[in-house]
Amino acid sequence: MTRPTYRLADIAARFGGSVMGDAETKITQIATLDTARAGEIAFLANAKYRKQLERSQASAVILSAADADATTLPRIVAANPYSYFAKLSAFLNPLQGYAAGVHPTAVIAQSARIAPDAHIAAFVTVGEGATIGAGSVVMAGCIIGEGVEIGANTRLYPRVVVYQNCVIGSHVILHSGVVIGSDGFGIAMEEGRWLKIPQIGRAVIGDHVEIGANTTVDRGALADTVIEEGAKLDNQIQVAHNVRIGAHTAIAGCVGIAGSANIGRYCRIGGGAIILGHLQVADQVEVSSGTIITKSIREKGTYTGTFPFDDNHAWRKNAAQLRHLDDMSDRIKRLEQEIETLKEKSQ
Amino acid sequence: MTRPTYRLADIAARFGGSVMGDAETKITQIATLDTARAGEIAFLANAKYRKQLERSQASAVILSAADADATTLPRIVAANPYSYFAKLSAFLNPLQGYAAGVHPTAVIAQSARIAPDAHIAAFVTVGEGATIGAGSVVMAGCIIGEGVEIGANTRLYPRVVVYQNCVIGSHVILHSGVVIGSDGFGIAMEEGRWLKIPQIGRAVIGDHVEIGANTTVDRGALADTVIEEGAKLDNQIQVAHNVRIGAHTAIAGCVGIAGSANIGRYCRIGGGAIILGHLQVADQVEVSSGTIITKSIREKGTYTGTFPFDDNHAWRKNAAQLRHLDDMSDRIKRLEQEIETLKEKSQ
Amino acid sequence: MTRPTYRLADIAARFGGSVMGDAETKITQIATLDTARAGEIAFLANAKYRKQLERSQASAVILSAADADATTLPRIVAANPYSYFAKLSAFLNPLQGYAAGVHPTAVIAQSARIAPDAHIAAFVTVGEGATIGAGSVVMAGCIIGEGVEIGANTRLYPRVVVYQNCVIGSHVILHSGVVIGSDGFGIAMEEGRWLKIPQIGRAVIGDHVEIGANTTVDRGALADTVIEEGAKLDNQIQVAHNVRIGAHTAIAGCVGIAGSANIGRYCRIGGGAIILGHLQVADQVEVSSGTIITKSIREKGTYTGTFPFDDNHAWRKNAAQLRHLDDMSDRIKRLEQEIETLKEKSQ
Repeated sequence: MTRPTYRLADIAARFGGSVMGDAETKITQIATLDTARAGEIAFLANAKYRKQLERSQASAVILSAADADATTLPRIVAANPYSYFAKLSAFLNPLQGYAAGVHPTAVIAQSARIAPDAHIAAFVTVGEGATIGAGSVVMAGCIIGEGVEIGANTRLYPRVVVYQNCVIGSHVILHSGVVIGSDGFGIAMEEGRWLKIPQIGRAVIGDHVEIGANTTVDRGALADTVIEEGAKLDNQIQVAHNVRIGAHTAIAGCVGIAGSANIGRYCRIGGGAIILGHLQVADQVEVSSGTIITKSIREKGTYTGTFPFDDNHAWRKNAAQLRHLDDMSDRIKRLEQEIETLKEKSQ
Repeated sequence: MTRPTYRLADIAARFGGSVMGDAETKITQIATLDTARAGEIAFLANAKYRKQLERSQASAVILSAADADATTLPRIVAANPYSYFAKLSAFLNPLQGYAAGVHPTAVIAQSARIAPDAHIAAFVTVGEGATIGAGSVVMAGCIIGEGVEIGANTRLYPRVVVYQNCVIGSHVILHSGVVIGSDGFGIAMEEGRWLKIPQIGRAVIGDHVEIGANTTVDRGALADTVIEEGAKLDNQIQVAHNVRIGAHTAIAGCVGIAGSANIGRYCRIGGGAIILGHLQVADQVEVSSGTIITKSIREKGTYTGTFPFDDNHAWRKNAAQLRHLDDMSDRIKRLEQEIETLKEKSQ
Repeated sequence: MTRPTYRLADIAARFGGSVMGDAETKITQIATLDTARAGEIAFLANAKYRKQLERSQASAVILSAADADATTLPRIVAANPYSYFAKLSAFLNPLQGYAAGVHPTAVIAQSARIAPDAHIAAFVTVGEGATIGAGSVVMAGCIIGEGVEIGANTRLYPRVVVYQNCVIGSHVILHSGVVIGSDGFGIAMEEGRWLKIPQIGRAVIGDHVEIGANTTVDRGALADTVIEEGAKLDNQIQVAHNVRIGAHTAIAGCVGIAGSANIGRYCRIGGGAIILGHLQVADQVEVSSGTIITKSIREKGTYTGTFPFDDNHAWRKNAAQLRHLDDMSDRIKRLEQEIETLKEKSQ
């Protein structure tokens, strides 16, 4: 397929920024500084990659005013080169379109309502009373439970499961293997065996949310689990029952969020972090990768709790002392008292 | 749909406990103290939620004798309000029933035996020699391998995979995306490349086990991987080959259990914990969230090993000292000796 | 089914090693020292299992020269008993064969090219322009995107998804629930909302790679995500966009690898480890389970950073001091100075 071509002047007319150098330079695709070839535009979002800029084969570069003189390549100077790149790339690489219609192999319940321009692929099942909005795409092998509501222009990649009665907003993206609305981990011990607590809440996913491959979002035990609009979740995340994730919060891969945790808006949670249950995390909190949040965080800021790695031999020596920290603290206190006594005596 | 209604007196007659206040109060559903409306019963399992009790709109409450006077609402006084709630909720919210029969799209091998009252949904495959017991439900897109045995009244949510020859007991629940019996991670290095070690054991899942969404249980390398009856596993857990999980042990989300670990009965493993391979964990051990178990635990109790989080600036300052702990310990020892010398001199 | 039987002499003729004891001993299967019965051969790869050797009911044993006299059982003495076991087990337990052909329920795009002897099972979809090589097996419910290339003798277990244009080599094994080529976590903040960055690279999986159940490998943002030949990945691993994993590296379960991390050859990454993005890990690096790698590792060796677990009471006491480490360090320094002053005075 031939890709359309745009001049730097066309791009700046559409997305803003000012062109330096040859505004007639032709662009068909976006690439990294390292891999860009003729016809491709790269971007410099961080001055520390200036070295790569020097040897780049790109036809043009997007960069900030501060870096504008770091190259003689044709370039677009933009206030935020990274978001400029995001918008230009989305323009050059539009999402694949899918023809309207229901694949003949799909199994659609009689009372399900599917928008005429939605795309339902092979081996999809849609349960009774479910609705799928205008322009939405449900790819092969997805299972949509009874009473599920899916908004408009939402995209489910292959093999997503949505359990009964859950709600998925508009402009949502769910990647393959995502499970929405599975039972939360609700059990009560009685006479030596666990009783199952029915999970009768729903999972409700707001507009413009994206959820990565194999991430799971449990339904609520009684009330709902809620992911607010614009939140972005990476792969392999576990969201337990009755969690609330605030709008525009971004969560990296492998994070686990325990039941009824309430996470604020515009937070950033690093990969592999664990957030315990029944606690509050304020807006704009950043949690470092691998950190375990064991109590509520009331103030915005960055929070960390990881053991710095070392070569195994050094780690072993130092880690052995962890079991004596309390004792070390006592000994320092005693030494301080004894020094005081000696100082008095020696006066 | 209209939900059936029960009087408090009916409920107490069925599940025990004593009614205080109007025994004619009508109940149709269960809810939290915060969200309950007219016709709903809430519960107080922990005195610290008494504040919510005060402002609750519930029609009635389940609580313990110790909390019986904390409200004037109609109430049921029960020995264990939480398990009472579990049983009442299960009664008010019975599992959805599924009609007996095999969906016409399902692909069933000739020698498979499926109980007449089992439910086999769309796009299921069942391999040669597999058996599915009475009353079991296999939802859309499940793949049941050759020779698999599934007991009675077991429920597989959509898109579960069970590899060949594995055994699933009765009254088991497997949530979407669960994989049972995939190959364990068995490799042997020879001359610079890894040889694959065939995984010829099975995965054997006991009765009344529940396994959460996207959890994986590998088959054994030679002998079997075993999850004993009544164990409860949350989402996104990895159970490696030849692990044994004792009866009634509960494991929270994102836990990883390495090969041949042997975990006792009635243990509770917190979210994100890692249990290394070839070790023993005694009965009734509780492992805190995020803890890495690196050696066997012989005594029941609670075990923890996590780095307390802090604001990033404070963490950075303190964590930097971890690399000097061994040195700090030496310096304290030296100080103690020098103090002794000085004290002797000063006498 | 009757299993074929081999004499120890046959086995040594095929795989090397020297027979001690009755070379006519008949072997049909391999087993552990503990579980082996008549007709089964066990192996001793580590002298610490000699106790199990003593009471083993195996008909024969594979062991090293150093352990050759630890039993009177018929035995094969081999340089590397573990890889010997791997090869013998692969011989005794060949992979199940699958008949050539495409299941009638599969949905194959017109321009897809499928080798005549490949096996395509029920409910598989293969997109336009995709190719599947000779002898490859695609099990039930797999979704193969447009333009995907799959090499020869590769095996996809049920419910694998490969997104468009990704490349899977030959002799690859992908277990159930694996997702290859989902979008990486690429977002840019602009005016309070996240813009999605199109992920236009591919995921490229080398020959002889094995990937465990429910592991996810994201496609590259601009350039490709690459897993080199012979790498072995366990279950529930997350490989982010633009990661490179070197040849023959082995990664245990639940590991998370953040974007653009570049991991060397012949590394071993322990379960639950987290490797942050944009860093280099040298060849032959071993990372301990649960360790968080926060900066590049330039030298081969073993690296660790975990908090040793303890009983909760002891942990609590010692962990509380972590927040005072920097202060403790200062106090030790001050004590050392004061001791010096006192020593000078007392001279």
